[in-house]
Amino acid sequence: MGMKVDHIGVAVPDLEGALDVWRDVLALEVEDIEVVPDQKVKVAKLRAGESVIELLEPTEEDSPVGRFLARSGGGIHHICLEVEDLEAALEAFAAKGLRLVDEKPRIGAGGHRIAFVHPKTMGGVLLELTEAPR
Amino acid sequence: MGMKVDHIGVAVPDLEGALDVWRDVLALEVEDIEVVPDQKVKVAKLRAGESVIELLEPTEEDSPVGRFLARSGGGIHHICLEVEDLEAALEAFAAKGLRLVDEKPRIGAGGHRIAFVHPKTMGGVLLELTEAPR
Repeated sequence: MGMKVDHIGVAVPDLEGALDVWRDVLALEVEDIEVVPDQKVKVAKLRAGESVIELLEPTEEDSPVGRFLARSGGGIHHICLEVEDLEAALEAFAAKGLRLVDEKPRIGAGGHRIAFVHPKTMGGVLLELTEAPR
Repeated sequence: MGMKVDHIGVAVPDLEGALDVWRDVLALEVEDIEVVPDQKVKVAKLRAGESVIELLEPTEEDSPVGRFLARSGGGIHHICLEVEDLEAALEAFAAKGLRLVDEKPRIGAGGHRIAFVHPKTMGGVLLELTEAPR
């Protein structure tokens, strides 16, 4: 099962201020900016090789990214690995003891099938999984 | 200037326990395990596409990763982007206001030229830069 890093999610209090750094100083290319109501974030996607840096500004304080920001002030929020078969991966990981946030795939940004693994059994890492396009 | 994600650094209290998850459950391939005395860590490198997940176990409590662990309990510690010309990148980033930990490249794991950007001007993200092999 080959995996790659689909994206790295970075929580930011102010998307424009973050773009001043990631786009204008680091010179990463913005591919898309969209609001994802399901996760209560406005997301800017910046290309970095085969991966994407996702800058996540919460649209509501009472949201996972909003609470993370209130706690930490901002920073790296999660990483997302791409797997070939998401259902098979979730089943295998649960069978081996990983605690899942989503036991079944759900639809995330851009219509992709995603699921989160709980940081509890990942040593504090919030891990998202996404399925490779077929 | 094209960048890619060279690696993601994850601080772990116990490398063997972390390998039980990242290698044995997620099935990522271990490419290398080495001690990096300069950064006071034992590092396991696991392949994920063009990037690497680096599991970092501190060899001393009084070290950057050791202090991060004591503070957070563990999790994503830093990300590293690969740039083509590290000296030029550091100069450009400093001129545009980023605060650097290393104003000049230094030698990191595997003999690579690296430098760290301070989280202060990166919205809480500890960013490492490494130079692509020429």
